[in-house]
Amino acid sequence: MKVSELGELGLIDLLSKMVSRALDKQSRAGQQLILGIGDDAAAWYGDASVQLATVDSLRQGVHFILETTSWVDLGWKALAVNLSDIAAMGGLPRYALVALALPGSTEVEDVTALYAGMLELAKEFGVAIVGGDTDDAPLVDITTTIIGSTGSREAHLLTRSAAQPGEKVAVTGYLGTAAAGLEMLTKHLSFDAEAMASLKKAFSRPYPRVAEGQILVGHGVRATIDISDGLISDLRHICQASRVSARIEIDRLPVLPAVRANFDDKALGLALAGGEDYELLFTASANIIDKVIAAAPCPITIIGEITAGKAGEVTLLDGKGNPVNLAKAGWEHFRTT
Amino acid sequence: MKVSELGELGLIDLLSKMVSRALDKQSRAGQQLILGIGDDAAAWYGDASVQLATVDSLRQGVHFILETTSWVDLGWKALAVNLSDIAAMGGLPRYALVALALPGSTEVEDVTALYAGMLELAKEFGVAIVGGDTDDAPLVDITTTIIGSTGSREAHLLTRSAAQPGEKVAVTGYLGTAAAGLEMLTKHLSFDAEAMASLKKAFSRPYPRVAEGQILVGHGVRATIDISDGLISDLRHICQASRVSARIEIDRLPVLPAVRANFDDKALGLALAGGEDYELLFTASANIIDKVIAAAPCPITIIGEITAGKAGEVTLLDGKGNPVNLAKAGWEHFRTT
Repeated sequence: MKVSELGELGLIDLLSKMVSRALDKQSRAGQQLILGIGDDAAAWYGDASVQLATVDSLRQGVHFILETTSWVDLGWKALAVNLSDIAAMGGLPRYALVALALPGSTEVEDVTALYAGMLELAKEFGVAIVGGDTDDAPLVDITTTIIGSTGSREAHLLTRSAAQPGEKVAVTGYLGTAAAGLEMLTKHLSFDAEAMASLKKAFSRPYPRVAEGQILVGHGVRATIDISDGLISDLRHICQASRVSARIEIDRLPVLPAVRANFDDKALGLALAGGEDYELLFTASANIIDKVIAAAPCPITIIGEITAGKAGEVTLLDGKGNPVNLAKAGWEHFRTT
Repeated sequence: MKVSELGELGLIDLLSKMVSRALDKQSRAGQQLILGIGDDAAAWYGDASVQLATVDSLRQGVHFILETTSWVDLGWKALAVNLSDIAAMGGLPRYALVALALPGSTEVEDVTALYAGMLELAKEFGVAIVGGDTDDAPLVDITTTIIGSTGSREAHLLTRSAAQPGEKVAVTGYLGTAAAGLEMLTKHLSFDAEAMASLKKAFSRPYPRVAEGQILVGHGVRATIDISDGLISDLRHICQASRVSARIEIDRLPVLPAVRANFDDKALGLALAGGEDYELLFTASANIIDKVIAAAPCPITIIGEITAGKAGEVTLLDGKGNPVNLAKAGWEHFRTT
């Protein structure tokens, strides 16, 4: 059945029922919720912790195409990219509102798959979907707002503006895997099954580093961003906001063997600028990073350091400590920025 | 200059500066704000009051066309429709996040006009714009999330589900004015200047009934919705959620003389189903409504009553108390619902 046959009210009713069945009353968000979907606004009991909010859209033709992203993965990802922002502030996600646009010709089962993907991730993080809006439009657009909070009023935030010269630059996980996955899907590349699965998963099902964000806060890290645009772009954001420079040693970049093996000299460009990894990029003293490495459930890699140079400047160094030309580092986009 | 020439980062920088200049540090939202636009998420100090959140999109071709809505009015309205939802819960709006999509060919001055309209209304209500997202897309879309709160943890909410048989049904302001304004603009109708100004204003600059919502809470009203879809549709929402019926006396509907005079027998249909009035529709005892009338800064009109009939049923009565056929009441749409 198509959405246009079910009608807007029918669709809202169907999605509301999915959401309310999935509502986890054990989670903190579930316990504090007073009203979810179905009134003029959602309502919950507030508390004195620091509140966080972020919004992000996944737009068809801009951020995804349905040829390379399934509906269920799209739902997961729409929520994941926002949870990643909350993670990068050192917060815990609590409530989600979803503004959805799609053509009337969309199959109802595709929309329920979208919500199933969203609810799967929401459940993992105890997030309650509490509101939304549904419109008929020519292209699919999922705009998700997440409201979260720090554990307490006293907990410090992870910001872009707290990096200090002398600190090391580190990242969680691996870089370039999602971009490699997108390239594999777009160009119909074929590798061994395990490599293909890990690349596809990195692109389609990014796993927000919420637990790692909490570890960063707990060990005194202050400057953090999530990598959505790509390592260099996002490190520039930190450097601009903190009025510092950064040096990256390209030989240190953590790149999955599956990416190195299958993308050869393209791997570096993917790691530097591929984007959509949703890893956390942070700066701290070597001492703090050692403690983070010991506590984190994922690999943590030091990739460079913060320096007192020109605000916003990011320099790449090769294995001998010589500067690397950005334009030669593997991604065309650099030439125009 | 076009948005594509300025670039996404340039546009975000321009809009962030507009927003931060407008930030009212005297408002409660302004005082509690820790971080606005510019990091991975906005952050503010929470409190123990009941928190409210709602999201709504204004999409080009679905909710507006640029031929009848100016950019500055579009900004005002994108925020207003959401503040109206918070008002209808008995809450006060605090923080806004704006996800904006527009074509690269849009003039930068049109986007700044959009934000100027939004900031004008935000200032009136002490709302801080704290986050956003900007994308290049073929059609304009403004998805606004508002986070608000009740005055205290003890304040009751205005919900759709609290209507009781025997209560009167009342509305703030006038009905059908916005729809009359849209018709005037679409069909290039010409009336006297004062009438045209009031109709255009009702359509282009709806004024959210936040103060009136507070008066409703203060006097013990419990069931409220804002009229976005039209009186009948929205009253049905109350009746469905409250498992009751309602009777409306059509002779009592408050319609502006400018609408009655210029739309003749179409005026009734506009009042019943025109939508976009963003007035508050509520139910309460006659005694409570008397107190609301005495306290409210705008007209409050009793238009009918809640009865114990079939859940969701809305009946229209003429001056003699006889049922009116919906299909004859002036709006084609009724025939298909």
